[in-house]
Amino acid sequence: MGELSIERDEVFRIRTARTPGLLAKALAAAGEYGANIGEIETVYIGADHNVREVAIIAPNAEALKSIARAMDAIEGVTVLPGRVDKVFDQHRGGKIEIKSRATVRTLQDIREVYTPGVARVVQAISDDETVADDYTWRGRTVAIVTNGTRVLGLGNVGPVAALPVMEGKALFYAQLVDVNAVPIVLDADEPADVIDTVMRLAPGFGAIHLEDIATPGVYEVERELSRRLSIPVFHDDQHGTAVVVVAAILSAAESLGEDIADLTFGQLGLGAAGSAIAGLASGFGFKEVRAFDPSSLSVDRLREVAEPGVELITGTDDDSFNDVVDRSDVLVMTTGQPGLLSPDRVRKGQIIMALTNPVAEITTGDAKAAGAAVAADGSIVNNVLAYPGLIRGALDVKSPAVTSTMKRAAAFAIASSAPDGQLLPDPLNRGVHAAVAGAVGEAAEGDQIPSQ
Amino acid sequence: MGELSIERDEVFRIRTARTPGLLAKALAAAGEYGANIGEIETVYIGADHNVREVAIIAPNAEALKSIARAMDAIEGVTVLPGRVDKVFDQHRGGKIEIKSRATVRTLQDIREVYTPGVARVVQAISDDETVADDYTWRGRTVAIVTNGTRVLGLGNVGPVAALPVMEGKALFYAQLVDVNAVPIVLDADEPADVIDTVMRLAPGFGAIHLEDIATPGVYEVERELSRRLSIPVFHDDQHGTAVVVVAAILSAAESLGEDIADLTFGQLGLGAAGSAIAGLASGFGFKEVRAFDPSSLSVDRLREVAEPGVELITGTDDDSFNDVVDRSDVLVMTTGQPGLLSPDRVRKGQIIMALTNPVAEITTGDAKAAGAAVAADGSIVNNVLAYPGLIRGALDVKSPAVTSTMKRAAAFAIASSAPDGQLLPDPLNRGVHAAVAGAVGEAAEGDQIPSQ
Repeated sequence: MGELSIERDEVFRIRTARTPGLLAKALAAAGEYGANIGEIETVYIGADHNVREVAIIAPNAEALKSIARAMDAIEGVTVLPGRVDKVFDQHRGGKIEIKSRATVRTLQDIREVYTPGVARVVQAISDDETVADDYTWRGRTVAIVTNGTRVLGLGNVGPVAALPVMEGKALFYAQLVDVNAVPIVLDADEPADVIDTVMRLAPGFGAIHLEDIATPGVYEVERELSRRLSIPVFHDDQHGTAVVVVAAILSAAESLGEDIADLTFGQLGLGAAGSAIAGLASGFGFKEVRAFDPSSLSVDRLREVAEPGVELITGTDDDSFNDVVDRSDVLVMTTGQPGLLSPDRVRKGQIIMALTNPVAEITTGDAKAAGAAVAADGSIVNNVLAYPGLIRGALDVKSPAVTSTMKRAAAFAIASSAPDGQLLPDPLNRGVHAAVAGAVGEAAEGDQIPSQ
Repeated sequence: MGELSIERDEVFRIRTARTPGLLAKALAAAGEYGANIGEIETVYIGADHNVREVAIIAPNAEALKSIARAMDAIEGVTVLPGRVDKVFDQHRGGKIEIKSRATVRTLQDIREVYTPGVARVVQAISDDETVADDYTWRGRTVAIVTNGTRVLGLGNVGPVAALPVMEGKALFYAQLVDVNAVPIVLDADEPADVIDTVMRLAPGFGAIHLEDIATPGVYEVERELSRRLSIPVFHDDQHGTAVVVVAAILSAAESLGEDIADLTFGQLGLGAAGSAIAGLASGFGFKEVRAFDPSSLSVDRLREVAEPGVELITGTDDDSFNDVVDRSDVLVMTTGQPGLLSPDRVRKGQIIMALTNPVAEITTGDAKAAGAAVAADGSIVNNVLAYPGLIRGALDVKSPAVTSTMKRAAAFAIASSAPDGQLLPDPLNRGVHAAVAGAVGEAAEGDQIPSQ
């Protein structure tokens, strides 16, 4: 396995003499190499020394080695052998499993869950297919479909290597909203083949979650599957991201006492996430929505997905770029260009979301120093806040689609679940996801004409 | 839902006065309508009466009503309202579910199972795909694939109605051998479309279990997928059945003190199950293997799947039929023709397996009365005895196929797990499945050249 220059965690076992201040000194060494500190657990308290397990979140593997050396060099501090890389341990054997829900202890039980009893359930579904949602797992089961053509920051790694990411998504479905999510990784690069395959396997699922499929092909996949299937089809990289970012903006406006109707929304960069964010935002009643992307295809895509009736001003040239920067009260950037926004362009009181990873268009520190009222970067965007509740809500009411109304409901529910002083709530709080699912289900039921 | 004329269980709540003999009287009423009695549980003991829950296994729904009336007519017996149809209860919400294996409580946990940690696992698999079996669920996960074209005795019910059967299979995988089995029900009638679809989704699975797909198409599906995939492809309707039937024959021969090498094996009927049974039997060293089917295509199929070197005598005419009946020491029938074998054709000391459901070629009673040493019908064939251990064994050693050697090992392991006086062991005994998996794994490892 090659060394990656991606952020990397390890748990160090650190022995410190019982001298006050020593742990802080050791931790300071980590900071010098750009690392953050995660959880710290004391595992041994002795007469003259303690042992702690300290999670070190380093910018890369090289930094971890340097940090270990630097800590070891401190008098009274020893980094014990056997640094723990918990990542591979957590993945061993997979992150999800299938369990039986029925208890089968006796031959009579077999007669009920299997032959001959099951034949009557088969017959009931054959007579009326809708009861399948009651008597099979379909009503609470989603396929997480990818072909591995755009995985995280890693690009086209293919279907097998994409599997751990899909399992991660499935794990959160299971833990947060009791939805069964089945990773389906496809050996199918062409959108037409992905569409064909999903159409064929769709009868066994209550929803389709598309993940990590390269643009622009994924747009066609999503559009065609949404058109041809009567179950929700949801591309998380677009819509999950959009819901979370918009929720953060709603929170920010609320915390500033601003009314959305008085604000101009601006978006720089209209890739998959950017066009989805601006498209979703266009349904919230902003005074204006302004957007820039150098590609006219990308601008056209936003015009396709934007809500009707909104004041939408778009462009591909420098004037348009400057317009967005200068006139936006809320400025969202998904440009892929680190450091794009110089601090002197920041307007006092602006809400700034600089979402390019791993290095943003402007750091939150610089943005605030330059007068931004709220500033956030890509680290706030955790899709785990959105997709579980969205899909659970859609399944609960058997919605045939995930509509804009449902996505807006999800964004409001997430925003209003954020504790004071935070833009967004804790993603591991099941209560948040229940609130999102409830709001989404209500929105779906009120939504007479699904409009994807 | 239409009433089916298929066997049907219900749990009656029966109140009886505390008079000795009353329960027996009530149960006798069930017998008069051709019903068997399942489990009996006492749920209330009062001063003057008891209440029991009694599972009634009736030939059809009409008989259940007659039984209830007949019981009610007995002085001191009341069938309480609310007869329980546990079948639909057991199916509500589905019979399987997906659970998280990793514990995610903190943001640090998220960093390990999801971003950024998961990126390193993705990279490791991208560098060397074989580690996917260690760091994803793939190494212990099988797809149960059907298009619903031949489900149980019900025929072509389509993919959705087939789902409860696939969930039943999956439930046993989970409960008996800790294998994750994902029901994949395909909207794809043509063998070529099934093959295409499975090829595309195969990267996420460690094995493919084909189920309830109509012949002859399923032969092509199995052959092509086996040829093109380097993971086990297993058609349960053929091979699961064959393994169980052959295990029963081995048990029978053992109980009679007979040596397989001295016995002639005969098979009437060479459909999917029949040709698989005779094909598998051909590898056990019988003196001769004789088989009859009126279709020369079916006979050709047996010649394709039979082991090389065996003395194989086949035919499609009456002489051939008579030959099989008259010369077999072991006579297996899968003809679809109830009552085909008249008792005067039975040879003294014969082992007879009359497997046509629901009414056999000859009843076990008639066969024994006519001199058969061992007689069994289709009720003994429970595939749950075979497929879980077979697939678990294949996955454990990463076998690229399920070979004849592995199937033979499974049959031996099942036969030798049968308690004295029984042809086959209890299908819910995990120890049996562990023994099968172990034997299959060993056989796979000894099997240098996989030959499906």
